[in-house]
Amino acid sequence: MANFKITPYEVKGEIDYDKVVSRFGAQKVTKQLIKKMKALPMIMRRGYIYAHRDFDKILAKKKFAIVSGRGVSNKIQLGHLTTLRFVKELQDIYGCYVFIPFSDDEKYMYKRDLSFEKLKELTYENILDIIALGFDPKKTDFVVDTQNMNQEIYNLAVRCAKRITFSTVKATFGFTNENNIGITFYPAMQAAHILYPTVKKGLPVVVPVGIDQDPFIKLSRDVAYKLKLTKPGGVYCTYVPGLKGGGKMSATDPDSTIYTTDTPKEVEKKIKKYAFSGGQPTIKEHREKGGNPDVDVSYQYLTFFMEDDKKLKKIYADYKSGKMLTSELKQICIDTINSFLKEHQKKREAAKKNIEKFMLRD
Amino acid sequence: MANFKITPYEVKGEIDYDKVVSRFGAQKVTKQLIKKMKALPMIMRRGYIYAHRDFDKILAKKKFAIVSGRGVSNKIQLGHLTTLRFVKELQDIYGCYVFIPFSDDEKYMYKRDLSFEKLKELTYENILDIIALGFDPKKTDFVVDTQNMNQEIYNLAVRCAKRITFSTVKATFGFTNENNIGITFYPAMQAAHILYPTVKKGLPVVVPVGIDQDPFIKLSRDVAYKLKLTKPGGVYCTYVPGLKGGGKMSATDPDSTIYTTDTPKEVEKKIKKYAFSGGQPTIKEHREKGGNPDVDVSYQYLTFFMEDDKKLKKIYADYKSGKMLTSELKQICIDTINSFLKEHQKKREAAKKNIEKFMLRD
Repeated sequence: MANFKITPYEVKGEIDYDKVVSRFGAQKVTKQLIKKMKALPMIMRRGYIYAHRDFDKILAKKKFAIVSGRGVSNKIQLGHLTTLRFVKELQDIYGCYVFIPFSDDEKYMYKRDLSFEKLKELTYENILDIIALGFDPKKTDFVVDTQNMNQEIYNLAVRCAKRITFSTVKATFGFTNENNIGITFYPAMQAAHILYPTVKKGLPVVVPVGIDQDPFIKLSRDVAYKLKLTKPGGVYCTYVPGLKGGGKMSATDPDSTIYTTDTPKEVEKKIKKYAFSGGQPTIKEHREKGGNPDVDVSYQYLTFFMEDDKKLKKIYADYKSGKMLTSELKQICIDTINSFLKEHQKKREAAKKNIEKFMLRD
Repeated sequence: MANFKITPYEVKGEIDYDKVVSRFGAQKVTKQLIKKMKALPMIMRRGYIYAHRDFDKILAKKKFAIVSGRGVSNKIQLGHLTTLRFVKELQDIYGCYVFIPFSDDEKYMYKRDLSFEKLKELTYENILDIIALGFDPKKTDFVVDTQNMNQEIYNLAVRCAKRITFSTVKATFGFTNENNIGITFYPAMQAAHILYPTVKKGLPVVVPVGIDQDPFIKLSRDVAYKLKLTKPGGVYCTYVPGLKGGGKMSATDPDSTIYTTDTPKEVEKKIKKYAFSGGQPTIKEHREKGGNPDVDVSYQYLTFFMEDDKKLKKIYADYKSGKMLTSELKQICIDTINSFLKEHQKKREAAKKNIEKFMLRD
């Protein structure tokens, strides 16, 4: 048994991605698949898309859509951005229709003390971050379940619900009789979100997620089959680790998380104080033995935020050899993230004027 | 144990309404309650509203709303009309806001072979019947779940769902793990329908139903309490018996049912052939012993469709004494129903132009 845990509600431990692929029964991303891509989004160049379902088949089609949902339980952090930036790159490369459902209703029903008002604020903040990434408003639709729920989506959820028993969601998600009937219904709504571009626009869909969300994809594939629709595919991204390393960055631990709204000083402080280091205890020892970039969180973050492959390679080598110190590596990480966030925060402000362009209207 | 069965999914046997009241724990309709009414709708004059929950409290308020849902699993028959005509009379007497949700989504999820297309046809036919009864379009809204589902109603369903566990619906409605997750979610949507006028317009709600639907009312009352809303009240009508007598008229047995679209000839044939008679085997015996209007279905129907109390009383006496034969009683029933349906069918045609006036739009 590997020393990690992955469910739709929890991800923790040191994740062994090879074991994950076999445990979930997904397909590995192969060289042949990579070759089929017109161009490679950054996280594919870095090897962070490690598994998929049917992505090869979907790439073989002329056009496809991407569905990338947001749970809106908290502010957006760098981990969330990674998947969304990948989606944006795929949109640029393939001209994909991108559908982003905000399942604020699910969060409301799942969390005891979360109000509609609080969720509305969070959704607004999330929307700004997503627009800031540069999605094409002509090819991108947002649906916020409690704001612009759509008759077609509701009806599709009804069609999906008819084909999913309580037994199935119990076995798939571990629901019990004490769960509320909204939470147990929700997989039907999520399947509707995933299948919406297929029903509405006749496009096959791919869903990029952390593999913890795979049960939703499998369920949607079963329902698609029953509704005689093309089964949605999945692409599985590795997790951006939390500052303290391991598992995935979680918005619920502020010390382990960098939010898109953090100031340069906050970013500096968090990385200096919390970012797990692959360096040696003393400078002397570090110069002699070198550091370990493979466990160093600052280095990991660079792999998600530094576009330049060559520069990144040099940093890897220099840190490993001991030529580069942990403090130097951390400074590069701080500068890279702050430079990214400076731009991002500007675009985030500008996004305030453009929200309506993205809201799905009948 | 009384020899009848009443659940939201089945009503059969000889119903003892006194036992029903105590079994369901409702309140009896008392003389004091009757006195509080500004005027009496026909079926209250006939004693067919036999029990209630909080109707006395709601009458004490200045204004109230009525919610009267339609399941749309079949064409409208005389049994359905009875409740709806009662609602229309209450609207006339009290100026009530009337909200009529058509839960076609529930029917779709409940019945294996029912398609959206078939439901759309049935809903259209149902709508014509309801408009034909003369509801005031300024005070009446229809929502068809798969046609004009409304964001506020959806959000209210989400708020209700958060407060209902699977255990509760399992215990209340006898659901099992093999039910689909749409059916198990549906009580939340139904509660939302019932509470909508309270949330939207601040009006207390009364729901007139057969007592088989009482579990939905009780559940809505629990949810209203949790949401700090006025608990909806219920008024319980006796069932219009099927032609063959006993239980309630069911749209699924055409031989036992008169539809609003039946021709005069069909009505004549059905009543002559199937209407259970309280008469004696021979005319001679009938003249001697008299008939039994209390079990005679033709007479029962007159109590629902003949406005004139005096005339009805005379028929009762004449049939009981043997002065009136079964064939004569049946003929009066045929004429009364056909006269009602002739008018109704005219208004039903005219309703085709007025549908949009009744559809709830944001």
